[in-house]
Amino acid sequence: MAKIAVLGYGTVGSGVVEVLETNAASITKKAGEAVEVKYVLDLRDFPGDPIQEKIVHDVDIIINDPEVSVVVEVMGGVEPACTFVKKALEAGKSVCTSNKALVAAHGPELIAMAKEKNINFMFEASVGGGIPIIRPLNQCLTADEVTQVTGILNGTTNYILTKMSKEGCSYDETLKEAQALGYAERNPEADVEGHDACRKIAILTSLYTGKTVKFEEITTEGITKISTADFKYAEKLGCVVKLLGTSRRDGDKVYAMTAPFMINASHPLYNVNDVINGVYVNGNMVGSLMFIGAGAGKLPTASAVVADIVDCVKHSGTNVATIWSSEKLELGATDDEVRSFFVRVKGDDEAAAKAAFGNIEVVKVEGIDGEFGFVTAEMSEKAYKEAAAKVEVINMIRLDKTVL
Amino acid sequence: MAKIAVLGYGTVGSGVVEVLETNAASITKKAGEAVEVKYVLDLRDFPGDPIQEKIVHDVDIIINDPEVSVVVEVMGGVEPACTFVKKALEAGKSVCTSNKALVAAHGPELIAMAKEKNINFMFEASVGGGIPIIRPLNQCLTADEVTQVTGILNGTTNYILTKMSKEGCSYDETLKEAQALGYAERNPEADVEGHDACRKIAILTSLYTGKTVKFEEITTEGITKISTADFKYAEKLGCVVKLLGTSRRDGDKVYAMTAPFMINASHPLYNVNDVINGVYVNGNMVGSLMFIGAGAGKLPTASAVVADIVDCVKHSGTNVATIWSSEKLELGATDDEVRSFFVRVKGDDEAAAKAAFGNIEVVKVEGIDGEFGFVTAEMSEKAYKEAAAKVEVINMIRLDKTVL
Repeated sequence: MAKIAVLGYGTVGSGVVEVLETNAASITKKAGEAVEVKYVLDLRDFPGDPIQEKIVHDVDIIINDPEVSVVVEVMGGVEPACTFVKKALEAGKSVCTSNKALVAAHGPELIAMAKEKNINFMFEASVGGGIPIIRPLNQCLTADEVTQVTGILNGTTNYILTKMSKEGCSYDETLKEAQALGYAERNPEADVEGHDACRKIAILTSLYTGKTVKFEEITTEGITKISTADFKYAEKLGCVVKLLGTSRRDGDKVYAMTAPFMINASHPLYNVNDVINGVYVNGNMVGSLMFIGAGAGKLPTASAVVADIVDCVKHSGTNVATIWSSEKLELGATDDEVRSFFVRVKGDDEAAAKAAFGNIEVVKVEGIDGEFGFVTAEMSEKAYKEAAAKVEVINMIRLDKTVL
Repeated sequence: MAKIAVLGYGTVGSGVVEVLETNAASITKKAGEAVEVKYVLDLRDFPGDPIQEKIVHDVDIIINDPEVSVVVEVMGGVEPACTFVKKALEAGKSVCTSNKALVAAHGPELIAMAKEKNINFMFEASVGGGIPIIRPLNQCLTADEVTQVTGILNGTTNYILTKMSKEGCSYDETLKEAQALGYAERNPEADVEGHDACRKIAILTSLYTGKTVKFEEITTEGITKISTADFKYAEKLGCVVKLLGTSRRDGDKVYAMTAPFMINASHPLYNVNDVINGVYVNGNMVGSLMFIGAGAGKLPTASAVVADIVDCVKHSGTNVATIWSSEKLELGATDDEVRSFFVRVKGDDEAAAKAAFGNIEVVKVEGIDGEFGFVTAEMSEKAYKEAAAKVEVINMIRLDKTVL
């Protein structure tokens, strides 16, 4: 019997308890022994709930109990999660977490601590919710040099963008609806400003390069400036707008970005809608791969956490290697990245736009007056900025042309 | 330095050598030591090719060399592959294979032999080519009870069906073209009759149930009866025709089938075209997942084989558990399966069709005369057969209504 402790009885924490109960028999078979939740750490009490008898308010009760072999951190946020995780690892307990903020900020340090103690630090649920993506990158694509990862990594923004696209609603209206449905937080900044997706692409890029990508250095734009007009232009271009976290190797450089992109029907993420997440991976031998599934939600996320618990129990006494050193990866300059841009400018002076941007494909939408849109040829971000300074830009959305 | 031997220098075998050479540095890092091909077993010689110095014609040279720790079986076919694999396992060498015929026929026996010797028998490349699907089922979805697996598991037939659908060519014409391009074998029976896809769904179903599915017991139909007329009806219905390998749990029964199905645009496999494979998996906690990628081809398949080699080298001295016992899984009777059917009948007697099938949705295609098509309500296969006996059926294609 493996005894575990869960830090945080919120959505994911209660999901972990539920998954362990629902599938107890098959989990026992796969882990090689039964898995029992001995403690749940939470500030709150849950009177009347059967979980109450396991609730503790002091993390040291867990840390000091030698029976506990795995600690599950599903509190979110960097602190106090980081302090608790370090205490657990120092005490020789494996840790599983769904906390992307923690992993993006302290991943290599926690991986190294686990390795030194011959235990494990696992974080499958930190990216893509229930989609297996950390383990495939770590353990399946070992024959490949990964050359690109591009994903819809945030369910909240994908829900908002899908709804805006399909129903023509405004951003503010759709956000409010998403909040009412519980798909968006009351303070939605981490999602809508792209910070969440940025941390996730930082984690994935660190994993495939083996070095540390500082998430603070990834050019990140959110979806707050996307309007119904943008979707009308997109439709005219046969495109949808998606918030992508993307990184790719180009020679010895790695470029990374989180931003809204226009993608057309040939793009592997074109049909990934609502709260579903999708991750495109390219390996130099295997070619294109896609992983799609529920990127958030109680049970899908808990499923990924419990898979980590099973792995920790199964590998008790062995460290499953994760190659992610603290050496910093110097990202290539965003200015050097080359792509096409969709641009909306005020007025009707197509000649001025051509003079500034060179070869452009003009797009007009009936009912949108006093402006026009166009798609540029491929150009560097630097060249784009120089050209954009010469016209009055209303909004710009990049194009991503990944194909399966 | 880990020394390995490759049995068979065909497409996949030469791909394995190429992957190991191309990505030698990163593979060494991930495996923990360099991986060197010491022998290649083949009936042929390859004069002038650098591989020639490693060629041996007698498998016992490999079996009797204690330096060889991993044997890679990429010959295909059940014999002599099975004999060679057993010899290798008995000699304490881990085995990696891409051979679905071998795995479907002898999987649990070879897994048990590896476990007893504390070595490994791995077969990621046997299903879905380069797509990670065996390891995700074995090691990622451990928190879930898998309830359904439905996949496009054969690249040859998907290429043929995609081309017939998009270009309106006949089956015979398209098959010839696929043969000329090397996408189909000169004797295409294993692919076009569904035998290959049947073995793959047998393997996947065995893995998620932990018991042995006898592939001979899976109802299997190929694509040879699919005509251009069928595609015209499909188009009218907003559908495409795909060869699916599918199995699902229903209570304590598991139903499995390989057959052409009509699927509409909401189906997660609708856009999986050409030689690409896709696998839909549903878990009772994680919900719907999709894995998409190159299902065949030299380097993608070799990528999966080499990932297994890396795992074997990394886990030298440890058996990575695969739960697949030799206990036979009794499949539910196909007669009891319930779904909708698309049916084409001779003549124009819609009333007779309604009398036989009950509520139907009639479909007519301009230019196709002397017949009509219809879609039935959901009914059992048994009820379908009874109704079909009362009319003159030209062709029948089942509908699959999986949604993400």
